Amino acid sequence: MLKGKIEIHNRVSMGSPFNGKNDMLDLIYTPGVAFVAKEISNNKKLAYDYTSKWNNVAIVCDGTRVLGLGDIGPEGAIPVMEGKSVLFKALGDINAFPLCIDTKDKEEIIRFVKAIQPVFGAVNIEDIESPKVLEIVERLQKDLSIPVFHDDQHGTAIIALAGLLNALRLLQKRIDSIRVVIAGAGSAGYGIFRILKEAGCRSIVVTDSQGAIYQNRPKGIESPYKKEMANETNPMKLSGSLADVIKGADVFIGVSGKARLINKEMVQSMNSNPIVFALSNPDPEILPSDAMEGGARIVATGRSDFANQVNNAVVFPAILRSLLDLRVKSLSEDMLVSVATAIADMVDSNHLKYDYIIPKVDDPRIIHIVTDTLKNAIQRHLDKKMR
Amino acid sequence: MLKGKIEIHNRVSMGSPFNGKNDMLDLIYTPGVAFVAKEISNNKKLAYDYTSKWNNVAIVCDGTRVLGLGDIGPEGAIPVMEGKSVLFKALGDINAFPLCIDTKDKEEIIRFVKAIQPVFGAVNIEDIESPKVLEIVERLQKDLSIPVFHDDQHGTAIIALAGLLNALRLLQKRIDSIRVVIAGAGSAGYGIFRILKEAGCRSIVVTDSQGAIYQNRPKGIESPYKKEMANETNPMKLSGSLADVIKGADVFIGVSGKARLINKEMVQSMNSNPIVFALSNPDPEILPSDAMEGGARIVATGRSDFANQVNNAVVFPAILRSLLDLRVKSLSEDMLVSVATAIADMVDSNHLKYDYIIPKVDDPRIIHIVTDTLKNAIQRHLDKKMR
Repeated sequence: MLKGKIEIHNRVSMGSPFNGKNDMLDLIYTPGVAFVAKEISNNKKLAYDYTSKWNNVAIVCDGTRVLGLGDIGPEGAIPVMEGKSVLFKALGDINAFPLCIDTKDKEEIIRFVKAIQPVFGAVNIEDIESPKVLEIVERLQKDLSIPVFHDDQHGTAIIALAGLLNALRLLQKRIDSIRVVIAGAGSAGYGIFRILKEAGCRSIVVTDSQGAIYQNRPKGIESPYKKEMANETNPMKLSGSLADVIKGADVFIGVSGKARLINKEMVQSMNSNPIVFALSNPDPEILPSDAMEGGARIVATGRSDFANQVNNAVVFPAILRSLLDLRVKSLSEDMLVSVATAIADMVDSNHLKYDYIIPKVDDPRIIHIVTDTLKNAIQRHLDKKMR
Repeated sequence: MLKGKIEIHNRVSMGSPFNGKNDMLDLIYTPGVAFVAKEISNNKKLAYDYTSKWNNVAIVCDGTRVLGLGDIGPEGAIPVMEGKSVLFKALGDINAFPLCIDTKDKEEIIRFVKAIQPVFGAVNIEDIESPKVLEIVERLQKDLSIPVFHDDQHGTAIIALAGLLNALRLLQKRIDSIRVVIAGAGSAGYGIFRILKEAGCRSIVVTDSQGAIYQNRPKGIESPYKKEMANETNPMKLSGSLADVIKGADVFIGVSGKARLINKEMVQSMNSNPIVFALSNPDPEILPSDAMEGGARIVATGRSDFANQVNNAVVFPAILRSLLDLRVKSLSEDMLVSVATAIADMVDSNHLKYDYIIPKVDDPRIIHIVTDTLKNAIQRHLDKKMR
């Protein structure tokens, strides 16, 4: 039995046992450590130099929306968060500790993350149900002095856009003239809506369990995030079911958490050369074979066992590595678009194919490309301010 | 620059990059991980088998009483807690993560520890000011399903008693006929008072900043823990200063956090063959050389750069290793005494000397001896219940 996918290692050696005088022990523990402790207490920022804070990321999850499995509790979330930690280490050389917590209370989760701030260089919020999580992230980004990344929202948005840009390239469609249907109005749906808007997409319809979201829909748009989507998408105020609004769409993006949400017939009803991103995990909204039978030209899922894995694993270790290295507090929407574009551009025209629209998760170029892209984007922001 | 003493390592390999189909990724992440996640959500205890919970310890500290440095804040506490983590790993093969938290509020700390319960196999409470911490530990021990160890209280008590038993052996004094003065009525003082009582010591006086603690002292014994000490120590109701009550004492144990609290003259005023344990870190209550000049026969400190290091580093990794392996929820006072006795007995009469009363921190026998001792003690408890 594996008994866990991660462990803590020492970066210092205790010295040989029974060596009489253990100098290393003096240094790393009493009394030597007291000097460093005092120095940091006089200047908190020294924690970045003298401790592992610079490279520590907290993965915070309350177990309420784990993968597409729903509310399986914090214990059930541990193997998933350990898996993320493995990817953080393997792909970004980051120490990410899985803090699966036993509270679902919004205010308590916010207090919890504030409390752990001293020992972490960044926070990754993960698999917490929406709309609760969207407010948690928004408030933490305001209140914390370290960056807060919300992988389900920001990571998924980046990688979905990256994949979409390449799919459009292959099919010679333009982002400003396509119609997109997003199924799922949670964190991922919200993040994708925001990034698509920033990228120039003008026709988006988001659906939830009650069908299309539109301005002044009488029910189920109470949260400020759904209200925002209602106001800023669906210009024609379509009010039907997913089966209704998918008709004639160029792109379907599923982040609903619901297996088999769409069928062949629905894909058949889409515009010519339809693109189907069925991103829910572990069970996509439609199996790739079914989507193909329905006429989809390009199909992507979140899974590594199908072609075109549109999975945030490609991007979150690189983004966090960049946030830690650059000590940036937050990412703006245009930075997310820059990263998505850079990732899309990694697949050059020689390699770009219907079943290869996105770099592989373990492509070693990603980390450098994301970091360089973010550095430039941040510099542009600073330049703008200077003007 | 060291930039931290610990890091997270993966126990699984991601496989070679660009290998086309990454089976390990399927398994540790989407979709394979979903199966394990579901299994655990149906039976929480499986987290011990399928995740690193079985070997994870949270070191929780709010930075309010770090070593003898006082309230230096959570950032200042990080290097100390990382040092503990290094010892946990090197001596007990435990993954201990330093959670230095940015809240001093008692209720919030309790909620915090309850929240992290899913992903840890045990909690080590560390360097939180008393009496707050004593209540925190008492309540957590009642409410959590995993063991809560309070190193400042339990660890220090065990190792102080172990050293004392050997010092008494050398000087041919009996624990039930000595007079002990404990300077410091915080976590360590409280823990030492409790273990000495359990070990048969009948004459203990505890002092705090206002002098001797005695029954119905008009001021400064409001906390239930000081009240307990007032009621159960100092049978003669001595009410003087530390300088007054140390006169004629056989043993001085300093856990006051105050450098140079006692001087040569005070040591001179003690009973013949006095024992001086000046355990505050990094600055002991009296330097060993001064204590010796005052006539002390056996001197111990908490520091590794003097002889006789009475330091809980000897014992906490082994105790936590045992708690994790045996899945025991709590330790009773008589178990603590058993462990102290076993550690004292590790120094056999051939080696026992005035400057060698306690095994070295990195003595590889400790882990086995503590585990065996606890196993037997727990068995005795179970046997008693069966009768």
